[in-house]
Amino acid sequence: MNYRMLLYLLSLILLIEAALLLIPLFVAVIYGESVFPFLITIGALIAVSLPGILQKPKNTKIYAKEGFVTVAASWLLMSAFGALPFVIGGMIPNYIDAFFETCSGFTTTGASILRVIEGCPKGLLFWRSFTHWIGGMGVLVFMLAILPQGSHAIYLLRAEVPGPTKGKLVPKLRHTAIILYAIYIGLTLTEVIALLIARMPLYDALVTTFGTAGTGGFSVMNESIAGYHNPAAEWIIAVFMLIFGINFNLFFLILIRKWREVLKSEELRVYLSIAFVSTVIVCIQTYNMSSGLEDCIRKAFFQTTSIISTSGFSTADFDVWPALTKSLFIFLMFVGSCAGSTAGGVKVSRIIIVFKNTVREIRHMLHPRSVNTVKMDGEPVSEETVKSAVNYIALYIAVLITSVLFVSFDKFTFGSGFSFETNFSGVMACLNNIGPGFDSVGPTRNYADYSLFSKIILSLDMLFGRLEIMPMIILFSPATWRKK
Amino acid sequence: MNYRMLLYLLSLILLIEAALLLIPLFVAVIYGESVFPFLITIGALIAVSLPGILQKPKNTKIYAKEGFVTVAASWLLMSAFGALPFVIGGMIPNYIDAFFETCSGFTTTGASILRVIEGCPKGLLFWRSFTHWIGGMGVLVFMLAILPQGSHAIYLLRAEVPGPTKGKLVPKLRHTAIILYAIYIGLTLTEVIALLIARMPLYDALVTTFGTAGTGGFSVMNESIAGYHNPAAEWIIAVFMLIFGINFNLFFLILIRKWREVLKSEELRVYLSIAFVSTVIVCIQTYNMSSGLEDCIRKAFFQTTSIISTSGFSTADFDVWPALTKSLFIFLMFVGSCAGSTAGGVKVSRIIIVFKNTVREIRHMLHPRSVNTVKMDGEPVSEETVKSAVNYIALYIAVLITSVLFVSFDKFTFGSGFSFETNFSGVMACLNNIGPGFDSVGPTRNYADYSLFSKIILSLDMLFGRLEIMPMIILFSPATWRKK
Repeated sequence: MNYRMLLYLLSLILLIEAALLLIPLFVAVIYGESVFPFLITIGALIAVSLPGILQKPKNTKIYAKEGFVTVAASWLLMSAFGALPFVIGGMIPNYIDAFFETCSGFTTTGASILRVIEGCPKGLLFWRSFTHWIGGMGVLVFMLAILPQGSHAIYLLRAEVPGPTKGKLVPKLRHTAIILYAIYIGLTLTEVIALLIARMPLYDALVTTFGTAGTGGFSVMNESIAGYHNPAAEWIIAVFMLIFGINFNLFFLILIRKWREVLKSEELRVYLSIAFVSTVIVCIQTYNMSSGLEDCIRKAFFQTTSIISTSGFSTADFDVWPALTKSLFIFLMFVGSCAGSTAGGVKVSRIIIVFKNTVREIRHMLHPRSVNTVKMDGEPVSEETVKSAVNYIALYIAVLITSVLFVSFDKFTFGSGFSFETNFSGVMACLNNIGPGFDSVGPTRNYADYSLFSKIILSLDMLFGRLEIMPMIILFSPATWRKK
Repeated sequence: MNYRMLLYLLSLILLIEAALLLIPLFVAVIYGESVFPFLITIGALIAVSLPGILQKPKNTKIYAKEGFVTVAASWLLMSAFGALPFVIGGMIPNYIDAFFETCSGFTTTGASILRVIEGCPKGLLFWRSFTHWIGGMGVLVFMLAILPQGSHAIYLLRAEVPGPTKGKLVPKLRHTAIILYAIYIGLTLTEVIALLIARMPLYDALVTTFGTAGTGGFSVMNESIAGYHNPAAEWIIAVFMLIFGINFNLFFLILIRKWREVLKSEELRVYLSIAFVSTVIVCIQTYNMSSGLEDCIRKAFFQTTSIISTSGFSTADFDVWPALTKSLFIFLMFVGSCAGSTAGGVKVSRIIIVFKNTVREIRHMLHPRSVNTVKMDGEPVSEETVKSAVNYIALYIAVLITSVLFVSFDKFTFGSGFSFETNFSGVMACLNNIGPGFDSVGPTRNYADYSLFSKIILSLDMLFGRLEIMPMIILFSPATWRKK
């Protein structure tokens, strides 16, 4: 383990976080709110990170292990420090609650413990939503974009960007990171402008866009997007949620006009098909509850894209929607969006690979001598990728079951605890970075009633989900820290 | 595909079913009930199977494909014909309902659609429970035991006996089948005698033992085992449920006094540990609801072994038990018992293999050059077995999700359908061959209210679970029936 380089990178990340905190500080100034929560946090971040920054290590080489550890540790630390403004500002007095909320922000989950959102300081709410935007594309990708890098930085990119296929867009890694952020900023600005045209106030347009772009789902309204009573804005947000669930590589291909390759993407086709079919089913099921066809389609489309993109915004209380819709939403939570997007879930491409592998196994059983490879977009997928996709499902199930069991301990000694639907959907919603679940953690309620222990478990689930499990396990595995 | 041999084997199975129906017919005679339901069914079975039996095929060779198809088709046909007595006798007027009940019997699920059980004809209830006993060890294993076999019969054994490790006990396959059935009959008789000593009437002791031995769970009481108000019997049944969840190979090793190999079994140790820890947790959680320590331990132990052995008998309404217990039971449903037992679930050994494989993958990520093999009971597990265990989890999740979605269509057009807890636990309880789930399919209620469509889906889930998915997929896969 290259400890010096690990320390250097972590210090750098924290310094970047200090710089990013200047933006909500600026917002607090505009609204005439206290800037102390931000100033103290920025001071703490600089104090902690300076010693590590000042002496750049001579050996800058890192490998897979350091990559995983750096990414997992920096996400934990960012959440730990990012929680401070909420505590200092008195908006969330309990530190664990604040950590949960910040973790939920960075991991673009959007699960909240705030009972009342309206009336909170604008600067702090801005920071809360801004964490979505930072976490969406990833802070290490950001670091790669702004700094000249050593030769092995690819391990950082691999550990932070979600999905089974993590390729560089262009030969130079730094350029890849810059292109990713350029697309991200471009799409973000487009949505902000669209929301302004739909007559949303600038502040609301900004924080809502952060929640959409990161597929996070924090809103500054108690009723989430429903609180705006603005159908045009709902359509815009729904479309952008769908867009931010798409692999960013495809946007790059569009930019360089390689349309044919975009159309060849199986993942995109399956993703859009799932979204379309689900919207139709939800429409049929909720027609009786809606006021007219446009209202029905808009709400169904909004809620479907909100769940499949793992954003978690809501325009309707989908906890009272019929059984099939709820089962469908649990399925969409599991599937999630495309690899290389800002969204969570298992990822469509992984599902495709596992499905094709199963078909191959059946074929192999019927014709033992036949040799087949799994293909995607017409190209063969390496056996290593297939194996890791299937293993990921097993690992995911293990984390899911363990978390549900741990969370079920809640109110263990007194009372009968939350319903199974609450515990199961709550873990699903955190592990897949959605936000709201069903029943006691449904869209009109939230995670405030869970015990601190459960909140820690759910925070870890969010990190497990955002970083796709492995980095977190490697960070906490004793074998990582054992000297050879 | 060796069609002639397939026809011959299926005919043979149906003839065996006709012979087995003589036993409930005899019971009906004793109780002075109508024998027509059985006579007509036996007649139909003979009429259908005779043409196929009379001309034994010259080429008796079968391979993996024929093995899977034979097993899947024979289980479907046995359930289809086994349902007839219930319809003819008027006990279950609707054929789909009767098919569900029979499928539930043969697959040792124990999920019921009968609203009132007490008062039904004794002969028909005997047949209902007897299907558990037949399905537990498997009718093809029975066939292998009673008939001299061709050289490739191993494929039948492999397709029917559950679990990742399907070995022959002794070199001769027929002897293996005879030993398995001898142990099965021996344990069955022991339980019957024990229940008689506990003052249970002979008829009740027999049907209850069938439900225990097959880890099925059908009872002749509306309240299941709770209806007997017999604590001694509850202890006996609980212990035997645990026993029938153990790999039968271990009983063979005990018979030939290879104690050391029994103690070496990791699967046994993990299985018993899970049962023990779960019982303790359930005890703590339900102590307030019980009348004294013995009552608490007995009910907790009974319900835990009932779920982990996938039997599904009940002595308490565990649907009202606290949250952790319910999550724990869902986890136990998923895990199930040991490979090579009469129980369902994913099987403990598969969980162990997948877990060890995950540890190995993490190690491989940390030290890319290291080479590790997965070991079980001190012996290396073949990569083929590891791969198929991991693939099984993925396949299992696919079947689970698809089934929950299909079942959620229930009451699609009117009403809001069953709760997610009902649909999810119902599919879990059928796919893992348990029987009762939670909420609307909890221990005090049952599957009667589901639509016929859902009942067919759930029946298929039971078969998927009992035959471990692959045989069913291969039976229904067009590629199986395509000519080369």
